[in-house]
Amino acid sequence: MSVSDAIAAVEGYLDGTQQERLDEYQAFLRIPSISALTAHTADMTTAADWLVGRMQAMGMTDAEASPTGGHPIVYGEWLGAEGAPTVLVYGHYDVQPVDPIEQWVRPPFEPRIEDGRIYARGAADDKGQVHIHLCAARAWFQTQGRLPINVKYLFEGEEESGSVNFDRWVEANRDRLRADLAVISDTGFFQGNHPAVTIGLRGITYAQIDVRGPRQDLHSGTYGGNVQNPANALAAIITGLRHPDGRIAVPGFYDQVRSLSDADRAQFARLDFDAAALAHEVGVAELFGEPDFSVLERRGARPTLDVNGIWAGFQGEGAKTIIPAEAHAKISCRLVPDMDPRVTLDRVRAHVAAIAPPGVRVEVRGIHDGMWSLTGIDHPATQAAAHCLREVFGEEPVYLREGGSIPAAATFGSVLGLPVVLLGFTPPDDQAHSPNEFMRLDNYEGGIRTVARYWEALASALGPPGSSGSA
Amino acid sequence: MSVSDAIAAVEGYLDGTQQERLDEYQAFLRIPSISALTAHTADMTTAADWLVGRMQAMGMTDAEASPTGGHPIVYGEWLGAEGAPTVLVYGHYDVQPVDPIEQWVRPPFEPRIEDGRIYARGAADDKGQVHIHLCAARAWFQTQGRLPINVKYLFEGEEESGSVNFDRWVEANRDRLRADLAVISDTGFFQGNHPAVTIGLRGITYAQIDVRGPRQDLHSGTYGGNVQNPANALAAIITGLRHPDGRIAVPGFYDQVRSLSDADRAQFARLDFDAAALAHEVGVAELFGEPDFSVLERRGARPTLDVNGIWAGFQGEGAKTIIPAEAHAKISCRLVPDMDPRVTLDRVRAHVAAIAPPGVRVEVRGIHDGMWSLTGIDHPATQAAAHCLREVFGEEPVYLREGGSIPAAATFGSVLGLPVVLLGFTPPDDQAHSPNEFMRLDNYEGGIRTVARYWEALASALGPPGSSGSA
Repeated sequence: MSVSDAIAAVEGYLDGTQQERLDEYQAFLRIPSISALTAHTADMTTAADWLVGRMQAMGMTDAEASPTGGHPIVYGEWLGAEGAPTVLVYGHYDVQPVDPIEQWVRPPFEPRIEDGRIYARGAADDKGQVHIHLCAARAWFQTQGRLPINVKYLFEGEEESGSVNFDRWVEANRDRLRADLAVISDTGFFQGNHPAVTIGLRGITYAQIDVRGPRQDLHSGTYGGNVQNPANALAAIITGLRHPDGRIAVPGFYDQVRSLSDADRAQFARLDFDAAALAHEVGVAELFGEPDFSVLERRGARPTLDVNGIWAGFQGEGAKTIIPAEAHAKISCRLVPDMDPRVTLDRVRAHVAAIAPPGVRVEVRGIHDGMWSLTGIDHPATQAAAHCLREVFGEEPVYLREGGSIPAAATFGSVLGLPVVLLGFTPPDDQAHSPNEFMRLDNYEGGIRTVARYWEALASALGPPGSSGSA
Repeated sequence: MSVSDAIAAVEGYLDGTQQERLDEYQAFLRIPSISALTAHTADMTTAADWLVGRMQAMGMTDAEASPTGGHPIVYGEWLGAEGAPTVLVYGHYDVQPVDPIEQWVRPPFEPRIEDGRIYARGAADDKGQVHIHLCAARAWFQTQGRLPINVKYLFEGEEESGSVNFDRWVEANRDRLRADLAVISDTGFFQGNHPAVTIGLRGITYAQIDVRGPRQDLHSGTYGGNVQNPANALAAIITGLRHPDGRIAVPGFYDQVRSLSDADRAQFARLDFDAAALAHEVGVAELFGEPDFSVLERRGARPTLDVNGIWAGFQGEGAKTIIPAEAHAKISCRLVPDMDPRVTLDRVRAHVAAIAPPGVRVEVRGIHDGMWSLTGIDHPATQAAAHCLREVFGEEPVYLREGGSIPAAATFGSVLGLPVVLLGFTPPDDQAHSPNEFMRLDNYEGGIRTVARYWEALASALGPPGSSGSA
């Protein structure tokens, strides 16, 4: 397929500048920007300033390290493509801690290139992907003096430590962040290193169940048989939330769940997913889930109700013969289109009240929630991303609906009202959050070329500002 | 009713020596023998030596503070009643800690006599009852130069701190402890301060359920819906152990349970028990237990299955979105005649295996067990105790079956093969283990007279050694 003159020039530039690009990538990786450890606070500033410097040097306007209550958010924009759409790009420049350090074959902040991979903490998650964006934009600036669309970069510094200041900053900068599309580059390719566009994420509602019985722990001999045991009662409540086959027993729970169309199911079925490998990976003899759905459907398109924690009474070694005064559980539901987190929690709460055994007081307290995200396969931004992946990697990309939630995706959806495309390039075996994290250089170089093409593709796919919307 | 010349003399002596007896009682209470706190190790020795001194002074033979791995066991015996039965008497000279100290109206180790009560830590539990035995024996020695039966005193120093050395000491002294009956004085009167003989205690089997799923905690978004959650699975297992109405659902669980006879039920029904007061005391709106049995029947004559502790996953503030790798619970069953602890545990284990959900590995590990104890109402030792209580307190005593286990009772039954009568005198509102513990002087004085008569009554009731057995 022929490419535009601009893309031909961009790719020529990229072909001729690999070494200096890799040098810069490694310089970025050498900054130990571990957001969770206060000992690295100065490194966080160094990394943020480093990014601002690169963005200013390549021609972005307004690049800055914007203060938050914690580590700065690096923000930069270039809005010179009059009449073209605007894309908000998200990545993060902070990295996970390196423990257990003794399991690293190479020091985590001394990047090494071996066998077509670059090893370092952050090589994949997420500095490599941030650098992909910088390199794609620079290639446009160097060869065309401009970008084909307007771009706003938001690189967070606290993604690995809870994103505690992120939502507030986005809300405070709502006007500045106006765009037509959000592109989040913090995901990766599919099992087997197949190119992928992640079009969906699940939402969540997280709550605590508190069961209270006697005023204080009771002697299980003196009182056993005459007092409802809060721990037994909590177990009964939890058991009553699900059928034994995995279906959720809360009345109305599935009422808002969008049914999977034949096309949706065909899309899931297309993915060559190895369920046995998944079971082996997590160390269970068999997977378990809702009947009549595939593993990937359960992960991406079906809601869950899981206990995340439970506690009551005595947890030490040996024996203590008490009826605990109270029992608690953390539970959460992963949510799919078109579930409302608050409605779902209300239904759970009502069911808990309905099935609560006699003799105890039960309360369900919401702790937090977040919206699901789904951008249609047929959305022009999805199709444009797929097109570019196909062109660059020579393979039909897959469309993924992931089971987790990415706070930035939920925030961009709910606060900014943007459709979200998750376009990431890390290999699925990238060891993110583990020792010996790496990026494949083929993914990295292909990622740069995909993004460079994507900006041009979006210019025509989305058309002028306001002409497209969320699916 | 007429009494023997010996009892008349004993009671005359007791009537004339109250002040010196109370002085001695208070001297005993002044020793802060808190076994759980190492700061009081010297006080434990002081208290043990104090007891040995009193026993030697009154005419016991072989009184000694016998070393254990922890605090000494005070042992003394008098075996001069040839041809008469031998009674093993149990009490303990250690006391609970005094926290919260600020809630004591009077300092816990400065005994005060006010309004017919003596206030001090240990006044009731159990120094007061140990002193009752000393005073009863001394009255016999002082007036008759002998006791009507052979007596072996075993006063433990670690009852309030886990009795960790008790069983080993009893086993090592099995021959020395040979007797016809064990009398345990570590219980009290019935609600309303009615005299009581405690004839039964429940046994116990205590176990831990371990549920294991994935190798490590999993991200509840990525894996939720496809992996059995060990905490949900544990809740289902626990729920499957009991019916919602409180009956235990383990097959065969009740097979060994001795049915209550009409006479048994009449005995329970005789007790004027205030269930509403019990609910109020523990702070619940309603009691809960097995249908078709009264509160006291459930406590004394029906088995239980309670969760004593449960834990899995995240227990902190806020939210952590994991599927826990494992989940654990401590459970215990209180056992009644004729349940075998091992058989019961095997049945629980088999049922857990039968109902364990797919996708997890489940193990049930026994932690400890102890036998129930029941000495018939018609046992001559029970009847003799009831007779003496009736004579001294002027009221028909009640027969109690308590819900807890007293380790000494289980040990005396299983190691020494002795029938056990629990004869205690503390008022039911004695604040044992709490601030402002007290003994009513009427209970104390009546206790001394009851024990003094009991020894004589047992001489004829039990007859020569070996002529009676366990019910």
